[in-house]
Amino acid sequence: MIKEKFGKRIKKLRKEKTDLSQENFAYLIGMDRTYYSSIENGNRNVSLINIEKIAKGLKITLSELFENIENE
Amino acid sequence: MIKEKFGKRIKKLRKEKTDLSQENFAYLIGMDRTYYSSIENGNRNVSLINIEKIAKGLKITLSELFENIENE
Repeated sequence: MIKEKFGKRIKKLRKEKTDLSQENFAYLIGMDRTYYSSIENGNRNVSLINIEKIAKGLKITLSELFENIENE
Repeated sequence: MIKEKFGKRIKKLRKEKTDLSQENFAYLIGMDRTYYSSIENGNRNVSLINIEKIAKGLKITLSELFENIENE
């Protein structure tokens, strides 16, 4: 399911690209920490605007954010 | 705004990759045609599951769907 794949992908990218905890990354992008946590856990059908916030926080393009997500 | 950029991007891709009208493309991917039309018009904060439906309808990856979207 795409929600789980997206969660795995952003968790991996957060660890690779930042040294931030879930909580601190959520704070950086202006998102509630429990909401952000539920996205990483694959439980949210996240919207375009929040996907863009995450990409900006990771300092990558949307295309990079979704790279090989089908194989997660 | 990302909603407008996304709308422009998928409209361009629908025309390039398919010979379908908005209405027929919406039907193909199982989406209400007025809802799909409002996405192309940049008026919807579309969710991950619907983004995936659109990519599958276009027969491209999610990464390709978002390629250079920042420059739309």
